[in-house]
Amino acid sequence: MDVLVTGSYGRCGTALIDHLHGTGGYEFTYLDRSDPDEDHEYGEYETVVADVADEEAVRDAMDGQDAVVHLAGYPRVESSFDDVLEPNVVGTYNVLEAARRAEVESVVFASSNHVVGGYEASFAPEIYEPEAGIVVDHTDPVRPDSFYGVSKRFGEDLGRFYVENCEYPERFYALRICSVRHSEYDHPYGDAESGVDDGEWSRDSDEYEEMVARMKAMWQSRRDFAHQVECCLHDRCVDYGVFYGVSDNRRRWFDLEHARATIGYDPQDDGEEWDAPPE
Amino acid sequence: MDVLVTGSYGRCGTALIDHLHGTGGYEFTYLDRSDPDEDHEYGEYETVVADVADEEAVRDAMDGQDAVVHLAGYPRVESSFDDVLEPNVVGTYNVLEAARRAEVESVVFASSNHVVGGYEASFAPEIYEPEAGIVVDHTDPVRPDSFYGVSKRFGEDLGRFYVENCEYPERFYALRICSVRHSEYDHPYGDAESGVDDGEWSRDSDEYEEMVARMKAMWQSRRDFAHQVECCLHDRCVDYGVFYGVSDNRRRWFDLEHARATIGYDPQDDGEEWDAPPE
Repeated sequence: MDVLVTGSYGRCGTALIDHLHGTGGYEFTYLDRSDPDEDHEYGEYETVVADVADEEAVRDAMDGQDAVVHLAGYPRVESSFDDVLEPNVVGTYNVLEAARRAEVESVVFASSNHVVGGYEASFAPEIYEPEAGIVVDHTDPVRPDSFYGVSKRFGEDLGRFYVENCEYPERFYALRICSVRHSEYDHPYGDAESGVDDGEWSRDSDEYEEMVARMKAMWQSRRDFAHQVECCLHDRCVDYGVFYGVSDNRRRWFDLEHARATIGYDPQDDGEEWDAPPE
Repeated sequence: MDVLVTGSYGRCGTALIDHLHGTGGYEFTYLDRSDPDEDHEYGEYETVVADVADEEAVRDAMDGQDAVVHLAGYPRVESSFDDVLEPNVVGTYNVLEAARRAEVESVVFASSNHVVGGYEASFAPEIYEPEAGIVVDHTDPVRPDSFYGVSKRFGEDLGRFYVENCEYPERFYALRICSVRHSEYDHPYGDAESGVDDGEWSRDSDEYEEMVARMKAMWQSRRDFAHQVECCLHDRCVDYGVFYGVSDNRRRWFDLEHARATIGYDPQDDGEEWDAPPE
């Protein structure tokens, strides 16, 4: 199976490289804005260096592919409208339109939990407690919490339009990814930006406790993510589906039954295993 | 109440002028791409001549308004991605962002039946027959049938983001308008483009019959549309709502109960009254 991966050297793309590259099932083409030799440890793979906002480059890369895993985009919830317009709105159109022209069968799209982030905003931190019993599934109304979330929902709707109205792509899978990290136990709040390392708030604080609880609820291990993408690539039944990209976390507030029943997603990990790195 | 109307000289905007202007309840500001003196019969009103894609012009026009009725946009279902990107995606962002800055309380947004047009594509022409019993409501999954439909859904999602995450606007009403005509009995298929007048197909044909049945299902009379907008402008309870913009047509396949119960929409007309113009 020939598979184009856009945004191949980000957190999610490298999880695919780690777990699926060289397994024999796929001939991957990687597309990223920067050459792996320059900025990444994944320097061994040939890469189409292009921005997904570049229509022609995307069209060239799509030629001959059976599927595309579209991960490229502006990745942060802290976003302005201008941040997301080109990378996420125009970029996803470019990918879908190129897939249509190249008669690509399946599109797996990196959507986001932020499409329904309004539920978290309303119910955090209780929502991270299993006893709260709050579960959001693919049928619940979307409540985007950011321009980023709105832009990801746009990609989902555009995917539905394509599969229902065009000959190709035949199948579209929106994965509302929760939190895939750079490495399995990479701490999302350990960087300078979060304030942990520059002393803005303490590891003993309530905020810190809540962030750890959140991470245990949201985590999708790298192997579970790669497995979920593989489920989509192997599926032949779905035309349009929305699935939560999360491990089988005790604290998750996202439904997994739809993904289990529909594409056979069978996550191995639980966010309780994930924990803050040693101080 | 100070109300800005964007796209004021289109089919929907002029229905507001016909039925609400001069009733004493509203101080309207009209915004349109073209001056009414040039292209319209509505030459008596002062107009902000601007495109909604012009961020600064929209911001200036929003100043001091209590509400905005945002009707401007690329209006046709036959649309390319480029057709809708600036007018509908960027334009609606400009309107919402300007409304937030100007602390405008209510936004009434011209969404479209094409957000759920996939149901029509699947079930036409049976869907136009009352006996078919097909009713789509605001909780059904969206199935956009066009780039136009996707762009209108984007506006709905963006509105939800704003009301849930920003102080203003406080209320957002998405009206999924079905078919408002230039005049009450204006025939939508009578223009050259449709092929009626240039003999491409006959008024006795099955296609013509289906188009008339469709129009009777989709019609929203100009007075019913103006009344529905007025319901939104007077409401103080909804934060985010999606309502179908349709008269009480015997053939309608859109729910009206939600609009009746939530904003008190009480349509007076039935598409059975609408009919093809004399040959």
